[in-house]
Amino acid sequence: MNYCSECGALVTLKIPDGDDRLRHVCGECGVIHYQNPKIIAGALPVWGGQVLLCRRAIAPRYGLWTLPAGFMENGETTEQAAAREAHEEANAKLRDLRLFSVISIPHVSHVYMLYRCELVADDFYPGSESLETRLFHEHEVPWEELAFHSVRKTLECFFSDRKQGVFQVHNLSFLLPR
Amino acid sequence: MNYCSECGALVTLKIPDGDDRLRHVCGECGVIHYQNPKIIAGALPVWGGQVLLCRRAIAPRYGLWTLPAGFMENGETTEQAAAREAHEEANAKLRDLRLFSVISIPHVSHVYMLYRCELVADDFYPGSESLETRLFHEHEVPWEELAFHSVRKTLECFFSDRKQGVFQVHNLSFLLPR
Ligand SMILES: [Zn+2]
Ligand SMILES: [Zn+2]
Repeated sequence: MNYCSECGALVTLKIPDGDDRLRHVCGECGVIHYQNPKIIAGALPVWGGQVLLCRRAIAPRYGLWTLPAGFMENGETTEQAAAREAHEEANAKLRDLRLFSVISIPHVSHVYMLYRCELVADDFYPGSESLETRLFHEHEVPWEELAFHSVRKTLECFFSDRKQGVFQVHNLSFLLPR
Repeated sequence: MNYCSECGALVTLKIPDGDDRLRHVCGECGVIHYQNPKIIAGALPVWGGQVLLCRRAIAPRYGLWTLPAGFMENGETTEQAAAREAHEEANAKLRDLRLFSVISIPHVSHVYMLYRCELVADDFYPGSESLETRLFHEHEVPWEELAFHSVRKTLECFFSDRKQGVFQVHNLSFLLPR
C-alpha cells in the first residue's frame, strides 16, 4: 500500500496514538488503513460414502486436488459463501451444511471455514476454476496430490470422526516452526 | 474507495472479466481491489459460575455491556485474537479456549468468532476501552443493556447449553428481515 484510497495522498507506516501496531496512515486526510485476515469458506460435500474433490485449473497449485473453497465475499454468510464456492467450482448443490473445520493460518492471515454437507445430487461437473470434479472413497483420496494442508487436515478429521461415529467441529491453527 | 492504493490513480467500479461482482478497479495499473468480511474475535470468560462482561468506554454502544471482542489482526490465530482482546479490554488472562459461537452478520460483513474459556484468575480490571469489568451470575446479566445482538445470543446459548450439560459450537447468521 502506497497511496490513500480515500484522498490519493501518500501513506506512511506508523503506529497511531493509542495503538501498538504499524499501520498505513494517510499523511493528508489522516485515515488509518487497517488490514485484516481473510476468510476462505468452503465445503466438504459427501455423496453416499464418498467425498467430492476438485482438481484446480488455476494457480496456485494448478492440477492438484482440493475441496471447493474460496474467499468469502462481503454481504454473504459463511455458509452462503461455502455453497457459492461449491457451485462455482463444481456446479454442486449442497444441503445440510454444518460447520466442520475452522483453521487459522496466521503467516498468510487466512482463516478457513469448511462445511461438512450432503450433495443434493451427483450431477456436478467442473466449473471454470476446475479441471475435473470427482467423488472419492477414503482409500481413493489422492493424499499426495492435495493442494493445501488445510484440505488434507480437514479430510483426515472427517474420516477419523466418521470412524468414531461422532462429528466434531475442529478448530486448528497451522503455525510455522520457529 | 476513490484511489488505487498501489499507484494513486482513480479507481472505477466495474465487473472484471470472469467475475460477477462490482469491484474497485484501477484505471491505470489495473489492480482489482477486493473487499472482504472482517472477523471479530472474542471471549466468553467464565469464573466459577459467573461470566465476565465489559462496559464499553468507546463508540458504538458507549456505556453498554459486551463480551471482550474486536477485529482480528493479520498474523494471529482466531484464538490468539480472542485472548488479546480479553487482555486489552479487561486485563484478563484466559485458559482452555474453545470455539463456541460463529455468527455471520452479512449486512455489515462481519463474522463473530467467540471462545468459551476459563479465567486464570479474578484479578481483571478495565482496559482503556472499558468503563467497568465485572462478573455476572446468569440472573444478574444486564440483558437490556447489552451492546450487541451477537453478545446476547452467545450468552443465551451459553446458559442454555450449561443447563443441558453439553456445550455445542453454535453457527448462526443474523439476516435482516426482507
Ligand atoms: Zn487520505
Ligand atoms: Zn493502480
